[in-house]
Amino acid sequence: MSEILIDVNALEKQYMKQKAVKNASFQIRKVMICGLIGPNGAGKTTIMKMLGGLALPTGGGISIFGETTEKGLAKARTRMSFMIETPYAKEKMTARENLEIQRIQKGVPDKKRIDEVLEIVNLTDTGKKPVKNFSLGMRQRLGIANALLTKPEIMVLDEPVNGLDPEGIVEIRELLLRLNREEHITIIISSHILSELSLLCTDYIFINHGEILQTLPASELKKICKEYYRIDTDNNSLAAAVLENKLGFTQFDVDKDGTIKLYEGLEDIRNVSKSLFENGVIPTTLAMNEANLEQYYMNMVGEENAEHNKVALLSDKKR
Amino acid sequence: MSEILIDVNALEKQYMKQKAVKNASFQIRKVMICGLIGPNGAGKTTIMKMLGGLALPTGGGISIFGETTEKGLAKARTRMSFMIETPYAKEKMTARENLEIQRIQKGVPDKKRIDEVLEIVNLTDTGKKPVKNFSLGMRQRLGIANALLTKPEIMVLDEPVNGLDPEGIVEIRELLLRLNREEHITIIISSHILSELSLLCTDYIFINHGEILQTLPASELKKICKEYYRIDTDNNSLAAAVLENKLGFTQFDVDKDGTIKLYEGLEDIRNVSKSLFENGVIPTTLAMNEANLEQYYMNMVGEENAEHNKVALLSDKKR
Repeated sequence: MSEILIDVNALEKQYMKQKAVKNASFQIRKVMICGLIGPNGAGKTTIMKMLGGLALPTGGGISIFGETTEKGLAKARTRMSFMIETPYAKEKMTARENLEIQRIQKGVPDKKRIDEVLEIVNLTDTGKKPVKNFSLGMRQRLGIANALLTKPEIMVLDEPVNGLDPEGIVEIRELLLRLNREEHITIIISSHILSELSLLCTDYIFINHGEILQTLPASELKKICKEYYRIDTDNNSLAAAVLENKLGFTQFDVDKDGTIKLYEGLEDIRNVSKSLFENGVIPTTLAMNEANLEQYYMNMVGEENAEHNKVALLSDKKR
Repeated sequence: MSEILIDVNALEKQYMKQKAVKNASFQIRKVMICGLIGPNGAGKTTIMKMLGGLALPTGGGISIFGETTEKGLAKARTRMSFMIETPYAKEKMTARENLEIQRIQKGVPDKKRIDEVLEIVNLTDTGKKPVKNFSLGMRQRLGIANALLTKPEIMVLDEPVNGLDPEGIVEIRELLLRLNREEHITIIISSHILSELSLLCTDYIFINHGEILQTLPASELKKICKEYYRIDTDNNSLAAAVLENKLGFTQFDVDKDGTIKLYEGLEDIRNVSKSLFENGVIPTTLAMNEANLEQYYMNMVGEENAEHNKVALLSDKKR
């Protein structure tokens, strides 16, 4: 396993009487793309702000690049970049002019870095176009260019595709994948569009009611979700008979359209395929069900909310 | 084919010197869920507003339920509902109180309709909760409840899932599918989240630069995108040899991970499967590539933009 860059331990944030984040522990390893998933108000942005020092924890600890003291964290944070809200830019200026201001403010000595980041985010050819004429996708890319000025090792992005049109969504996705694969930048990202996260992330952190419900590598999700094999053949009723009588299977369904969903024997699908053929059935579809982040999330949050409501009800009764 | 409810012919909208919509023609048939797809500024909202009489066309014609005159259209529009912006509601009032105001304003005589629509959108149990404590998903559902008061036959929804969290997105998706399937309501919807539209729509209308690029049934998209079969076996190199030497196929690729992508012989995949078995290869995966709305859209818009830029360049030169 790769190096741990961020280690969050029992983190807590209390606003007045409400705990926005409770006992949150997780680790971010080098070159992860880690998706923070949860409903509105779950605590995602608060966690991101605490990572960036934009909000102070009321409990627990954060370690970034091994630094845990206030001074050490400030230093560690110079190796990170944050895009927590829609990036601000001066409307009448060009991309280059905006970046030049940011370069000076951030104390980046190398002027050439502007050309580099413009090229990375594919905004080199915007020339004299002022930001006010940029699409939302171009603005987001400019925000990312800005975040890249300091050559961060970790980027924290809150809803970077929110409100983008289909092309903008693809642009940002491809950019983030490139930054991760080619520049080896570790990315922490939140989004409500789970289909989008499932195209990006190597790892997921599920959050609800300020608590971390689960951390899960995408590879693990794939394993969990590979629950059944979809089977179509030239004779599905015969196929079902083979599954039942020759292979002794009981755990399969036949869909309305005749497709068979097989829930057992998946560890040796070759054997299933072979038996079908040997019994005169020619398979035309043999397909593992694909991982479905949304379904997984909805089940988890559904159960969690039921539990949460039960606890709330009990504590109501106690009063 | 089902009845045509809306027939738009050479519709045009000019704002000052700019044409927001040019020569747009399309038809909406009964019980379609039709997705309007295009970049920001493509003209989607303008088209929706013209359907609702919220913007006046500067050219072309609209027929709704066969009505084409101003008076006729006004009557036809009483059979439609529109949710073009985030629905407005009185914050301190409950869902029921808000709907009661709307019911009176819209002149819906039947008081029971409020219970019905609350039940349809699953807001019956919000009781005394004021709207200010509603989640964004609940607000959108209240907006839809409001739109349902008049028992519309057609609903027009502009970005109804924008900004919703994952649960909210699922709620609205399931609600719209139910309204379409059980209440037989025809739906016109715009969204930038193509993965979401592909779970909802029966038909797509692609729009760019104010023009309709294409109208396409989802079933047609599936046919177009079903370009190859993914094949895995217990011996992929032998499988490739069978495809080449026994079946005489040339149009297939072998992926890095060994998976075969077959582009020919798809009309008789049973024969491919059979040949593999008969030559000692046991298939473990036989799966048609799934329709990908995003890929299709990106290709189309990419080509269209290249064409558009070429034309723009030519007309620049003419000046």
